[in-house]
Amino acid sequence: MTAEIRAPIASRPNLENLCLVLVSTRNPLNLGAAARAMSNFGFLQLRLVHPYDRAFREARSAVGASAVLQKATEFSSVPEAVADCSLVVGTTSLHRRAPEQPAKTLAEAAATITTHLTSGRCAILFGSEKVGLPTEALDHCHFLLRIPTRAAHPSMNLGQAVAVCLYELAREERRLPKQTAAVKATAGNLERLTVSLLTALELSGYIKPGTENATERKLRRLLHRIEVEPEDAELLLGMLHQILWKLRER
Amino acid sequence: MTAEIRAPIASRPNLENLCLVLVSTRNPLNLGAAARAMSNFGFLQLRLVHPYDRAFREARSAVGASAVLQKATEFSSVPEAVADCSLVVGTTSLHRRAPEQPAKTLAEAAATITTHLTSGRCAILFGSEKVGLPTEALDHCHFLLRIPTRAAHPSMNLGQAVAVCLYELAREERRLPKQTAAVKATAGNLERLTVSLLTALELSGYIKPGTENATERKLRRLLHRIEVEPEDAELLLGMLHQILWKLRER
Repeated sequence: MTAEIRAPIASRPNLENLCLVLVSTRNPLNLGAAARAMSNFGFLQLRLVHPYDRAFREARSAVGASAVLQKATEFSSVPEAVADCSLVVGTTSLHRRAPEQPAKTLAEAAATITTHLTSGRCAILFGSEKVGLPTEALDHCHFLLRIPTRAAHPSMNLGQAVAVCLYELAREERRLPKQTAAVKATAGNLERLTVSLLTALELSGYIKPGTENATERKLRRLLHRIEVEPEDAELLLGMLHQILWKLRER
Repeated sequence: MTAEIRAPIASRPNLENLCLVLVSTRNPLNLGAAARAMSNFGFLQLRLVHPYDRAFREARSAVGASAVLQKATEFSSVPEAVADCSLVVGTTSLHRRAPEQPAKTLAEAAATITTHLTSGRCAILFGSEKVGLPTEALDHCHFLLRIPTRAAHPSMNLGQAVAVCLYELAREERRLPKQTAAVKATAGNLERLTVSLLTALELSGYIKPGTENATERKLRRLLHRIEVEPEDAELLLGMLHQILWKLRER
Protein backbone atom coordinates (compact mmCIF):
# COMPACT_ATOMS: atom_id res chain seq x y z
CA MET A 1 0.00 0.00 0.00
CA THR A 2 2.77 2.39 0.92
CA ALA A 3 4.42 1.93 -2.45
CA GLU A 4 1.19 2.78 -4.18
CA ILE A 5 0.64 5.84 -2.04
CA ARG A 6 4.16 7.04 -2.62
CA ALA A 7 3.80 6.81 -6.36
CA PRO A 8 4.00 10.29 -7.88
CA ILE A 9 1.20 11.75 -9.92
CA ALA A 10 1.65 9.73 -13.09
CA SER A 11 2.48 11.75 -16.14
CA ARG A 12 -1.07 12.46 -17.16
CA PRO A 13 -1.97 13.07 -20.73
CA ASN A 14 -2.20 16.68 -21.81
CA LEU A 15 -1.50 18.48 -18.55
CA GLU A 16 0.48 20.95 -20.61
CA ASN A 17 -2.72 21.82 -22.44
CA LEU A 18 -4.05 23.56 -19.37
CA CYS A 19 -3.00 27.06 -18.44
CA LEU A 20 -3.95 29.06 -15.43
CA VAL A 21 -4.62 32.76 -16.02
CA LEU A 22 -4.44 35.14 -13.06
CA VAL A 23 -6.16 38.44 -13.82
CA SER A 24 -5.10 41.59 -11.91
CA THR A 25 -3.67 39.74 -8.91
CA ARG A 26 -2.47 42.23 -6.29
CA ASN A 27 -0.89 40.21 -3.47
CA PRO A 28 2.56 38.71 -4.11
CA LEU A 29 1.84 35.99 -1.54
CA ASN A 30 -1.16 34.90 -3.59
CA LEU A 31 0.90 34.78 -6.79
CA GLY A 32 3.45 32.63 -5.00
CA ALA A 33 0.78 30.39 -3.49
CA ALA A 34 -0.92 29.85 -6.85
CA ALA A 35 2.41 28.95 -8.47
CA ARG A 36 3.24 26.54 -5.64
CA ALA A 37 -0.08 24.69 -5.98
CA MET A 38 0.49 24.45 -9.74
CA SER A 39 3.88 22.90 -9.16
CA ASN A 40 2.43 20.52 -6.52
CA PHE A 41 -0.18 19.20 -8.92
CA GLY A 42 1.85 19.25 -12.14
CA PHE A 43 0.23 22.14 -14.02
CA LEU A 44 3.10 24.35 -15.10
CA GLN A 45 1.67 26.95 -17.51
CA LEU A 46 1.00 30.23 -15.71
CA ARG A 47 -0.18 33.36 -17.51
CA LEU A 48 -0.68 36.75 -15.89
CA VAL A 49 -2.94 39.51 -17.16
CA HIS A 50 -1.77 42.95 -15.94
CA PRO A 51 -0.66 41.78 -12.53
CA TYR A 52 -0.11 44.54 -10.02
CA ASP A 53 3.51 45.27 -10.99
CA ARG A 54 5.11 45.38 -7.58
CA ALA A 55 3.35 42.13 -6.63
CA PHE A 56 4.76 40.38 -9.66
CA ARG A 57 8.29 41.67 -9.15
CA GLU A 58 8.19 40.74 -5.48
CA ALA A 59 6.80 37.26 -6.04
CA ARG A 60 9.18 36.51 -8.89
CA SER A 61 12.24 37.64 -6.99
CA ALA A 62 11.29 36.00 -3.70
CA VAL A 63 13.73 33.43 -2.35
CA GLY A 64 12.44 30.07 -3.47
CA ALA A 65 10.18 31.53 -6.17
CA SER A 66 9.05 28.54 -8.12
CA ALA A 67 10.04 27.60 -11.64
CA VAL A 68 6.39 28.08 -12.54
CA LEU A 69 6.51 31.75 -11.53
CA GLN A 70 9.85 32.31 -13.23
CA LYS A 71 8.43 30.99 -16.50
CA ALA A 72 5.08 32.80 -16.22
CA THR A 73 4.16 34.91 -19.24
CA GLU A 74 2.49 38.35 -19.09
CA PHE A 75 -0.37 39.61 -21.24
CA SER A 76 -2.10 42.95 -21.37
CA SER A 77 -5.62 41.60 -21.86
CA VAL A 78 -7.69 38.48 -21.30
CA PRO A 79 -8.36 37.90 -25.04
CA GLU A 80 -4.61 37.87 -25.71
CA ALA A 81 -3.93 35.52 -22.80
CA VAL A 82 -6.47 32.96 -23.98
CA ALA A 83 -6.03 33.38 -27.74
CA ASP A 84 -4.67 29.84 -28.27
CA CYS A 85 -7.24 28.16 -25.99
CA SER A 86 -10.41 26.51 -27.25
CA LEU A 87 -12.03 26.28 -23.82
CA VAL A 88 -12.04 29.23 -21.43
CA VAL A 89 -13.41 28.78 -17.92
CA GLY A 90 -13.98 31.55 -15.39
CA THR A 91 -13.99 31.03 -11.63
CA THR A 92 -16.46 32.80 -9.38
CA SER A 93 -18.10 32.39 -6.02
CA LEU A 94 -21.33 33.73 -7.62
CA HIS A 95 -22.18 35.62 -4.43
CA ARG A 96 -22.05 39.07 -5.97
CA ARG A 97 -24.17 38.61 -9.08
CA ALA A 98 -26.27 36.24 -11.10
CA PRO A 99 -24.09 34.94 -13.91
CA GLU A 100 -25.08 35.35 -17.53
CA GLN A 101 -22.87 32.38 -18.47
CA PRO A 102 -23.77 28.81 -17.64
CA ALA A 103 -22.25 27.67 -14.34
CA LYS A 104 -20.92 24.29 -13.22
CA THR A 105 -19.66 22.98 -9.92
CA LEU A 106 -15.93 22.26 -9.78
CA ALA A 107 -16.49 18.51 -10.09
CA GLU A 108 -18.69 18.91 -13.18
CA ALA A 109 -16.32 21.44 -14.68
CA ALA A 110 -13.29 19.20 -14.08
CA ALA A 111 -14.90 16.38 -16.05
CA THR A 112 -15.53 18.69 -19.02
CA ILE A 113 -12.06 20.23 -18.83
CA THR A 114 -10.23 16.89 -18.60
CA THR A 115 -12.03 15.58 -21.65
CA HIS A 116 -11.30 18.81 -23.50
CA LEU A 117 -7.58 18.61 -22.75
CA THR A 118 -7.27 15.50 -24.91
CA SER A 119 -7.83 17.62 -28.01
CA GLY A 120 -7.22 21.28 -27.23
CA ARG A 121 -5.98 23.91 -24.83
CA CYS A 122 -7.98 25.16 -21.87
CA ALA A 123 -7.54 28.32 -19.78
CA ILE A 124 -8.92 28.71 -16.26
CA LEU A 125 -9.24 32.35 -15.19
CA PHE A 126 -8.95 33.58 -11.61
CA GLY A 127 -9.80 37.19 -10.80
CA SER A 128 -8.37 39.68 -8.34
CA GLU A 129 -8.66 39.17 -4.60
CA LYS A 130 -11.12 42.01 -4.11
CA VAL A 131 -13.51 41.93 -7.02
CA GLY A 132 -13.00 38.62 -8.78
CA LEU A 133 -13.15 38.53 -12.57
CA PRO A 134 -14.45 41.66 -14.32
CA THR A 135 -17.50 41.29 -16.55
CA GLU A 136 -15.37 41.78 -19.68
CA ALA A 137 -13.32 38.74 -18.70
CA LEU A 138 -16.41 36.64 -17.93
CA ASP A 139 -17.71 37.38 -21.43
CA HIS A 140 -14.74 35.46 -22.83
CA CYS A 141 -15.66 32.33 -20.86
CA HIS A 142 -17.50 29.30 -22.17
CA PHE A 143 -18.76 28.60 -18.68
CA LEU A 144 -18.17 29.50 -15.06
CA LEU A 145 -16.80 27.21 -12.41
CA ARG A 146 -17.82 27.41 -8.77
CA ILE A 147 -16.30 25.62 -5.79
CA PRO A 148 -19.24 24.62 -3.58
CA THR A 149 -18.84 26.59 -0.36
CA ARG A 150 -21.01 27.58 2.58
CA ALA A 151 -23.58 30.31 1.84
CA ALA A 152 -22.50 32.15 5.00
CA HIS A 153 -18.90 32.39 3.77
CA PRO A 154 -18.64 31.63 0.05
CA SER A 155 -15.54 33.58 -0.98
CA MET A 156 -12.26 31.66 -0.89
CA ASN A 157 -8.69 32.86 -0.63
CA LEU A 158 -7.12 32.95 -4.12
CA GLY A 159 -4.24 30.55 -3.43
CA GLN A 160 -6.59 28.09 -1.74
CA ALA A 161 -9.13 28.25 -4.58
CA VAL A 162 -6.34 27.52 -7.09
CA ALA A 163 -5.13 24.56 -5.00
CA VAL A 164 -8.61 23.07 -4.71
CA CYS A 165 -9.29 23.41 -8.45
CA LEU A 166 -6.01 21.80 -9.44
CA TYR A 167 -6.44 19.00 -6.90
CA GLU A 168 -9.81 18.20 -8.45
CA LEU A 169 -8.34 18.26 -11.97
CA ALA A 170 -5.48 16.00 -10.89
CA ARG A 171 -7.76 13.41 -9.25
CA GLU A 172 -6.62 9.85 -9.80
CA GLU A 173 -9.76 8.80 -11.62
CA ARG A 174 -9.30 11.56 -14.16
CA ARG A 175 -5.94 10.28 -15.36
CA LEU A 176 -7.53 8.45 -18.24
CA PRO A 177 -10.44 10.42 -19.60
CA LYS A 178 -13.20 8.26 -20.95
CA GLN A 179 -13.70 9.99 -24.26
CA THR A 180 -11.97 12.30 -26.62
CA ALA A 181 -13.47 15.73 -27.04
CA ALA A 182 -14.44 17.23 -30.35
CA VAL A 183 -11.87 19.82 -31.36
CA LYS A 184 -13.12 23.36 -30.69
CA ALA A 185 -12.13 26.66 -32.21
CA THR A 186 -9.49 28.59 -30.29
CA ALA A 187 -10.40 31.74 -28.41
CA GLY A 188 -8.28 33.68 -30.90
CA ASN A 189 -10.43 32.33 -33.74
CA LEU A 190 -13.61 33.10 -31.85
CA GLU A 191 -12.40 36.62 -31.14
CA ARG A 192 -11.64 37.27 -34.81
CA LEU A 193 -15.08 35.93 -35.60
CA THR A 194 -16.71 38.18 -33.00
CA VAL A 195 -14.87 41.27 -34.16
CA SER A 196 -15.58 40.57 -37.81
CA LEU A 197 -19.24 39.97 -37.16
CA LEU A 198 -19.51 43.09 -35.00
CA THR A 199 -17.88 45.18 -37.68
CA ALA A 200 -20.27 43.73 -40.19
CA LEU A 201 -23.22 44.51 -37.96
CA GLU A 202 -21.94 48.00 -37.43
CA LEU A 203 -21.28 48.65 -41.07
CA SER A 204 -24.62 47.19 -41.98
CA GLY A 205 -26.47 49.50 -39.57
CA TYR A 206 -27.70 46.63 -37.39
CA ILE A 207 -26.27 48.20 -34.27
CA LYS A 208 -28.27 51.20 -33.05
CA PRO A 209 -26.32 54.03 -31.38
CA GLY A 210 -25.90 53.36 -27.66
CA THR A 211 -26.32 49.59 -27.97
CA GLU A 212 -22.77 48.81 -29.16
CA ASN A 213 -21.57 47.34 -25.86
CA ALA A 214 -24.70 45.34 -25.18
CA THR A 215 -24.60 43.87 -28.68
CA GLU A 216 -20.93 43.01 -28.39
CA ARG A 217 -21.47 41.15 -25.14
CA LYS A 218 -24.53 39.35 -26.44
CA LEU A 219 -22.63 38.26 -29.52
CA ARG A 220 -19.59 37.11 -27.62
CA ARG A 221 -21.66 34.96 -25.29
CA LEU A 222 -23.55 33.52 -28.21
CA LEU A 223 -20.39 32.44 -30.00
CA HIS A 224 -19.08 30.79 -26.86
CA ARG A 225 -22.32 28.91 -26.34
CA ILE A 226 -22.45 27.40 -29.79
CA GLU A 227 -18.92 25.93 -29.55
CA VAL A 228 -17.74 26.39 -33.10
CA GLU A 229 -15.31 23.82 -34.47
CA PRO A 230 -12.09 25.16 -36.03
CA GLU A 231 -12.99 24.46 -39.65
CA ASP A 232 -16.36 26.11 -39.17
CA ALA A 233 -14.72 29.12 -37.57
CA GLU A 234 -12.40 29.44 -40.57
CA LEU A 235 -15.30 29.09 -42.94
CA LEU A 236 -17.38 31.70 -41.11
CA LEU A 237 -14.43 34.06 -40.97
CA GLY A 238 -13.93 33.70 -44.73
CA MET A 239 -17.57 34.53 -45.32
CA LEU A 240 -17.45 37.50 -42.98
CA HIS A 241 -14.33 38.93 -44.53
CA GLN A 242 -16.01 38.82 -47.87
CA ILE A 243 -19.10 40.54 -46.45
CA LEU A 244 -16.93 43.14 -44.77
CA TRP A 245 -15.07 43.85 -47.99
CA LYS A 246 -18.38 44.36 -49.69
CA LEU A 247 -19.75 46.53 -46.89
CA ARG A 248 -16.69 48.75 -47.00
CA GLU A 249 -16.75 49.03 -50.74
CA ARG A 250 -20.06 50.83 -50.74
CA MET B 1 -28.94 25.10 -13.27
CA THR B 2 -27.91 28.37 -11.68
CA ALA B 3 -30.27 27.80 -8.80
CA GLU B 4 -28.73 24.41 -8.17
CA ILE B 5 -25.21 25.81 -8.32
CA ARG B 6 -26.10 28.63 -5.95
CA ALA B 7 -27.47 26.24 -3.38
CA PRO B 8 -25.28 26.34 -0.26
CA ILE B 9 -23.53 23.31 1.08
CA ALA B 10 -26.51 21.51 2.58
CA SER B 11 -26.36 20.99 6.28
CA ARG B 12 -24.46 17.76 6.21
CA PRO B 13 -24.80 15.25 8.96
CA ASN B 14 -22.16 15.34 11.63
CA LEU B 15 -19.83 18.06 10.34
CA GLU B 16 -19.45 19.14 13.95
CA ASN B 17 -17.94 15.74 14.67
CA LEU B 18 -14.81 16.69 12.76
CA CYS B 19 -12.11 18.83 14.30
CA LEU B 20 -8.98 20.13 12.72
CA VAL B 21 -5.88 20.10 14.91
CA LEU B 22 -2.97 22.36 13.99
CA VAL B 23 0.23 21.31 15.73
CA SER B 24 2.98 23.91 16.32
CA THR B 25 1.89 26.26 13.55
CA ARG B 26 4.28 29.21 13.30
CA ASN B 27 2.92 31.54 10.63
CA PRO B 28 -0.14 33.67 11.54
CA LEU B 29 -1.09 33.84 7.85
CA ASN B 30 -1.33 30.05 7.78
CA LEU B 31 -3.49 29.99 10.89
CA GLY B 32 -5.78 32.55 9.28
CA ALA B 33 -5.85 30.67 5.97
CA ALA B 34 -6.69 27.35 7.65
CA ALA B 35 -9.53 29.00 9.60
CA ARG B 36 -10.86 30.65 6.44
CA ALA B 37 -10.98 27.35 4.52
CA MET B 38 -12.76 25.74 7.48
CA SER B 39 -15.39 28.45 7.41
CA ASN B 40 -15.72 28.16 3.60
CA PHE B 41 -16.45 24.44 3.80
CA GLY B 42 -18.47 24.39 7.01
CA PHE B 43 -16.04 22.73 9.43
CA LEU B 44 -15.94 24.98 12.46
CA GLN B 45 -14.03 23.10 15.19
CA LEU B 46 -10.41 24.26 15.33
CA ARG B 47 -7.96 23.04 17.96
CA LEU B 48 -4.40 24.26 18.37
CA VAL B 49 -1.56 22.38 20.01
CA HIS B 50 1.12 24.75 21.31
CA PRO B 51 0.86 27.24 18.47
CA TYR B 52 3.76 29.66 18.22
CA ASP B 53 2.34 32.24 20.65
CA ARG B 54 2.91 35.39 18.68
CA ALA B 55 1.40 33.76 15.60
CA PHE B 56 -1.75 32.86 17.47
CA ARG B 57 -2.16 36.31 19.01
CA GLU B 58 -1.57 37.99 15.66
CA ALA B 59 -3.96 35.76 13.76
CA ARG B 60 -6.68 35.99 16.38
CA SER B 61 -6.51 39.77 16.62
CA ALA B 62 -6.22 40.39 12.87
CA VAL B 63 -8.96 42.49 11.31
CA GLY B 64 -11.51 40.07 9.93
CA ALA B 65 -10.22 37.14 11.97
CA SER B 66 -12.81 34.49 11.48
CA ALA B 67 -15.27 33.21 14.03
CA VAL B 68 -13.51 29.86 13.67
CA LEU B 69 -10.24 31.32 14.90
CA GLN B 70 -11.92 33.27 17.69
CA LYS B 71 -13.50 30.06 18.98
CA ALA B 72 -10.38 27.89 18.56
CA THR B 73 -9.31 25.99 21.66
CA GLU B 74 -5.71 25.49 22.79
CA PHE B 75 -4.12 22.30 24.09
CA SER B 76 -0.67 21.56 25.38
CA SER B 77 -0.31 18.13 23.78
CA VAL B 78 -1.70 16.04 20.94
CA PRO B 79 -3.19 13.36 23.24
CA GLU B 80 -5.18 16.05 25.08
CA ALA B 81 -6.37 17.63 21.85
CA VAL B 82 -7.70 14.35 20.46
CA ALA B 83 -8.90 12.77 23.72
CA ASP B 84 -12.59 12.80 22.73
CA CYS B 85 -11.96 11.56 19.17
CA SER B 86 -12.30 7.95 18.10
CA LEU B 87 -10.52 8.42 14.78
CA VAL B 88 -7.26 10.35 14.53
CA VAL B 89 -5.76 11.03 11.11
CA GLY B 90 -2.33 12.54 10.45
CA THR B 91 -1.42 14.44 7.31
CA THR B 92 1.96 14.04 5.65
CA SER B 93 3.59 14.42 2.28
CA LEU B 94 5.58 11.24 3.07
CA HIS B 95 8.62 12.68 1.35
CA ARG B 96 10.82 12.76 4.41
CA ARG B 97 10.36 9.27 5.79
CA ALA B 98 8.67 5.95 5.32
CA PRO B 99 5.61 5.89 7.55
CA GLU B 100 5.08 3.23 10.17
CA GLN B 101 1.34 3.84 10.11
CA PRO B 102 -0.87 2.74 7.23
CA ALA B 103 -1.32 5.50 4.63
CA LYS B 104 -4.28 6.43 2.44
CA THR B 105 -4.75 8.93 -0.34
CA LEU B 106 -7.01 11.86 0.51
CA ALA B 107 -9.92 10.40 -1.47
CA GLU B 108 -9.66 7.04 0.33
CA ALA B 109 -9.24 8.75 3.68
CA ALA B 110 -12.24 11.03 3.10
CA ALA B 111 -14.51 8.03 2.51
CA THR B 112 -13.38 6.45 5.79
CA ILE B 113 -13.66 9.71 7.72
CA THR B 114 -17.14 10.58 6.41
CA THR B 115 -18.47 7.19 7.39
CA HIS B 116 -16.83 7.50 10.80
CA LEU B 117 -18.44 10.90 11.45
CA THR B 118 -21.89 9.30 11.55
CA SER B 119 -21.00 7.66 14.85
CA GLY B 120 -18.03 9.37 16.43
CA ARG B 121 -15.58 12.27 16.45
CA CYS B 122 -12.59 12.52 14.14
CA ALA B 123 -9.48 14.71 14.39
CA ILE B 124 -7.27 15.55 11.41
CA LEU B 125 -3.79 16.69 12.42
CA PHE B 126 -1.65 19.12 10.44
CA GLY B 127 1.97 19.67 11.45
CA SER B 128 4.20 22.72 11.40
CA GLU B 129 5.25 24.40 8.17
CA LYS B 130 8.86 23.29 8.46
CA VAL B 131 8.86 19.77 9.79
CA GLY B 132 5.31 18.49 9.55
CA LEU B 133 3.97 16.30 12.34
CA PRO B 134 6.49 15.00 14.89
CA THR B 135 6.78 11.23 15.33
CA GLU B 136 5.10 11.42 18.74
CA ALA B 137 2.02 12.93 17.08
CA LEU B 138 2.02 10.35 14.28
CA ASP B 139 1.97 7.58 16.89
CA HIS B 140 -1.45 8.81 17.99
CA CYS B 141 -2.87 8.42 14.48
CA HIS B 142 -4.96 5.54 13.20
CA PHE B 143 -3.70 6.21 9.70
CA LEU B 144 -1.96 8.85 7.63
CA LEU B 145 -3.53 10.86 4.85
CA ARG B 146 -1.60 12.03 1.82
CA ILE B 147 -2.70 14.46 -0.89
CA PRO B 148 -1.36 13.02 -4.17
CA THR B 149 1.21 15.52 -5.43
CA ARG B 150 4.05 15.57 -7.92
CA ALA B 151 7.19 13.71 -6.81
CA ALA B 152 9.31 16.68 -7.87
CA HIS B 153 7.40 19.01 -5.52
CA PRO B 154 5.34 17.04 -2.98
CA SER B 155 5.14 19.45 -0.05
CA MET B 156 2.11 21.74 0.02
CA ASN B 157 1.54 25.05 1.75
CA LEU B 158 -0.35 24.48 5.02
CA GLY B 159 -3.37 26.66 4.21
CA GLN B 160 -3.70 25.09 0.78
CA ALA B 161 -3.42 21.54 2.14
CA VAL B 162 -6.19 22.29 4.66
CA ALA B 163 -8.41 23.73 1.90
CA VAL B 164 -7.91 20.71 -0.36
CA CYS B 165 -8.65 18.23 2.46
CA LEU B 166 -11.83 20.02 3.52
CA TYR B 167 -12.99 20.39 -0.09
CA GLU B 168 -12.66 16.64 -0.52
CA LEU B 169 -14.53 15.96 2.73
CA ALA B 170 -17.30 18.36 1.72
CA ARG B 171 -17.79 16.82 -1.75
CA GLU B 172 -21.40 16.67 -2.81
CA GLU B 173 -21.48 12.89 -3.08
CA ARG B 174 -20.36 12.52 0.51
CA ARG B 175 -23.38 14.35 1.92
CA LEU B 176 -25.18 11.11 2.57
CA PRO B 177 -22.72 8.45 3.61
CA LYS B 178 -23.69 4.99 2.48
CA GLN B 179 -23.22 3.19 5.74
CA THR B 180 -22.97 3.85 9.41
CA ALA B 181 -19.63 3.16 11.03
CA ALA B 182 -19.14 0.91 13.99
CA VAL B 183 -18.58 3.03 17.08
CA LYS B 184 -14.89 3.16 18.01
CA ALA B 185 -13.18 3.86 21.30
CA THR B 186 -12.12 7.48 21.86
CA ALA B 187 -8.46 8.43 21.82
CA GLY B 188 -8.75 9.18 25.54
CA ASN B 189 -9.90 5.61 26.14
CA LEU B 190 -7.15 4.22 23.94
CA GLU B 191 -4.59 6.33 25.76
CA ARG B 192 -5.73 5.05 29.17
CA LEU B 193 -5.54 1.56 27.75
CA THR B 194 -2.03 2.15 26.42
CA VAL B 195 -0.78 3.64 29.66
CA SER B 196 -2.35 0.90 31.77
CA LEU B 197 -0.93 -1.82 29.57
CA LEU B 198 2.49 -0.20 29.55
CA THR B 199 2.48 0.06 33.32
CA ALA B 200 1.48 -3.55 33.51
CA LEU B 201 4.28 -4.56 31.17
CA GLU B 202 6.72 -2.49 33.15
CA LEU B 203 5.62 -3.84 36.49
CA SER B 204 5.64 -7.34 35.14
CA GLY B 205 9.20 -7.04 33.88
CA TYR B 206 8.25 -7.42 30.22
CA ILE B 207 9.98 -4.21 29.26
CA LYS B 208 13.75 -4.50 29.19
CA PRO B 209 15.78 -1.43 30.19
CA GLY B 210 16.39 0.85 27.19
CA THR B 211 13.40 -0.47 25.22
CA GLU B 212 10.72 1.60 27.01
CA ASN B 213 10.18 4.08 24.20
CA ALA B 214 10.21 1.49 21.45
CA THR B 215 7.71 -0.65 23.33
CA GLU B 216 5.45 2.30 24.01
CA ARG B 217 5.35 3.26 20.34
CA LYS B 218 4.82 -0.33 19.22
CA LEU B 219 1.96 -0.71 21.65
CA ARG B 220 0.31 2.56 20.72
CA ARG B 221 0.36 1.70 17.01
CA LEU B 222 -1.00 -1.75 17.74
CA LEU B 223 -3.97 -0.38 19.70
CA HIS B 224 -4.78 2.05 16.92
CA ARG B 225 -4.64 -0.71 14.31
CA ILE B 226 -7.05 -3.02 16.05
CA GLU B 227 -9.76 -0.34 16.38
CA VAL B 228 -11.20 -1.23 19.73
CA GLU B 229 -14.90 -0.54 20.28
CA PRO B 230 -15.84 1.50 23.40
CA GLU B 231 -17.33 -1.34 25.39
CA ASP B 232 -14.28 -3.48 24.66
CA ALA B 233 -12.00 -0.65 25.71
CA GLU B 234 -13.86 -0.35 29.02
CA LEU B 235 -13.69 -4.08 29.52
CA LEU B 236 -9.97 -4.22 28.77
CA LEU B 237 -9.33 -1.27 31.07
CA GLY B 238 -11.19 -3.01 33.88
CA MET B 239 -9.09 -6.12 33.39
CA LEU B 240 -5.89 -4.14 33.29
CA HIS B 241 -6.69 -2.19 36.42
CA GLN B 242 -7.21 -5.42 38.22
CA ILE B 243 -3.92 -6.77 36.93
CA LEU B 244 -2.17 -3.56 37.90
CA TRP B 245 -3.58 -3.74 41.41
CA LYS B 246 -2.28 -7.23 41.70
CA LEU B 247 1.12 -6.34 40.26
CA ARG B 248 1.47 -3.49 42.71
CA GLU B 249 0.38 -5.58 45.67
CA ARG B 250 3.36 -7.88 45.42
